[in-house]
Amino acid sequence: MEMSRSPSQDEAAGILFVVSTGPGDMGNLTPLAREAMLESEVVIGNQFYLEQMKTLLVGKKVITSHMGKEVDRAREAVRLARGSRVAMVSGGDAGVYGMASIVLELAQREAPGLEVKIIPGVTAATAAASVLGSPLSGDFLVISLSDLLTPWEVIERRLDLGFQMGIPIAVYNPRSHNRPGNLKKALEIGLRHARPDTPVGIVRNAYRNEGEDFTVTDLRSLHEDDSAVDMHSMVIIGGESTRLLKEGEDVRGIITPRGYHRKYVY
Amino acid sequence: MEMSRSPSQDEAAGILFVVSTGPGDMGNLTPLAREAMLESEVVIGNQFYLEQMKTLLVGKKVITSHMGKEVDRAREAVRLARGSRVAMVSGGDAGVYGMASIVLELAQREAPGLEVKIIPGVTAATAAASVLGSPLSGDFLVISLSDLLTPWEVIERRLDLGFQMGIPIAVYNPRSHNRPGNLKKALEIGLRHARPDTPVGIVRNAYRNEGEDFTVTDLRSLHEDDSAVDMHSMVIIGGESTRLLKEGEDVRGIITPRGYHRKYVY
Repeated sequence: MEMSRSPSQDEAAGILFVVSTGPGDMGNLTPLAREAMLESEVVIGNQFYLEQMKTLLVGKKVITSHMGKEVDRAREAVRLARGSRVAMVSGGDAGVYGMASIVLELAQREAPGLEVKIIPGVTAATAAASVLGSPLSGDFLVISLSDLLTPWEVIERRLDLGFQMGIPIAVYNPRSHNRPGNLKKALEIGLRHARPDTPVGIVRNAYRNEGEDFTVTDLRSLHEDDSAVDMHSMVIIGGESTRLLKEGEDVRGIITPRGYHRKYVY
Repeated sequence: MEMSRSPSQDEAAGILFVVSTGPGDMGNLTPLAREAMLESEVVIGNQFYLEQMKTLLVGKKVITSHMGKEVDRAREAVRLARGSRVAMVSGGDAGVYGMASIVLELAQREAPGLEVKIIPGVTAATAAASVLGSPLSGDFLVISLSDLLTPWEVIERRLDLGFQMGIPIAVYNPRSHNRPGNLKKALEIGLRHARPDTPVGIVRNAYRNEGEDFTVTDLRSLHEDDSAVDMHSMVIIGGESTRLLKEGEDVRGIITPRGYHRKYVY
């Protein structure tokens, strides 16, 4: 929200950046995101993400918080930005299950005229895809299994329609403390519409120094045993044209061809 | 595809990076992508994207090509990477309507054992979203209206199911030379399921030096007149909870609230 009217002195001084830091460490932090953090006097964010960006925080006021306090964190950021340059940090892309929307909502209501700038980043879905090969090459669906902010019935209905589309699905929040069975239910819906041997990739800790790994399985097998999926996982379920990437008998990842074979001989 | 068997001398020397350069100029190029380009002896890519990255190309063999020759370009990259370090550049995220899949397909077939590394980037959908505010905050669908590689009937079916989901839709390739009417048809499908006043954002040239701009309209109005959409546009159609971001009477963008209002009083 750029300002439309003449700013008061205080508002002129203030700006609130919502900075996407990408997945993992600083290797995925864009120059625009880096600049926004360096320009800010105050940096606010989840402790986990700020840990990865330590070298950018020298000399700044740093306010850390923990998961699950998004509304409080956003309100604090908006309040502080009335008089200073503030960076609200959000992992992945801030506009995808991140802090952008709640910050904009609160800024609109509580600080009209405040300049808010959303800095995009590498989102977790495409980062995980790059680890697996190229499962999201064409059309795809992004969906979260967390029913904290969306009723489960709505999620189920979306999944049912989504699987009918036959396109890959990037599943955020596949596992949560409160509803450990959501993934199994989602895969059940998948099995109504998709081949049981549809490839599925599970990526843990993408681009983090410690412990990035991935597993390739299929819809039926994951439905039988989903213990490989934890809270730090992204699950990508293939579409009807998704297949395994192999070298000899070794599975290397998954790929959704874009369909050049229908147009070209190669 | 990391190598599974002992590489021969030639293969050990070769590596093929598929490098996502993000939208627009180098402001969205991640450090990992930058490093991959700097490490490479050969850089291959579409002239338009390479133009934005000129300073990274000094001293390298540069092979430019034009749109629509993806298969040839990928084959050339695979061939060259047998003996050298090659970066195949792809705008946005290479794994989303980019070069990742065709490169992996050809490498698997024509150069088994070759190391191919996909470097993720900021994809056009979330970059456009950040310009508009936060329209893709929750679940969303990514779909292309290009029927070059996907039959139009398949695209229509996906759109019909997608609009029933009530979630935002990021539309790639909304306009093409050959089928200028695809967008109008897509919006017609939208009007069967969604409110006519559903907010729609059009973003042109996101993060490019020349001429980034955006327009906010709605489903019905865009269906009546889609002349604001060109080949460099990304169109984001809101979902059932998407609304306008306003300051007083001025429209600032669009937002899809994540649903905190259902959980918290704020």
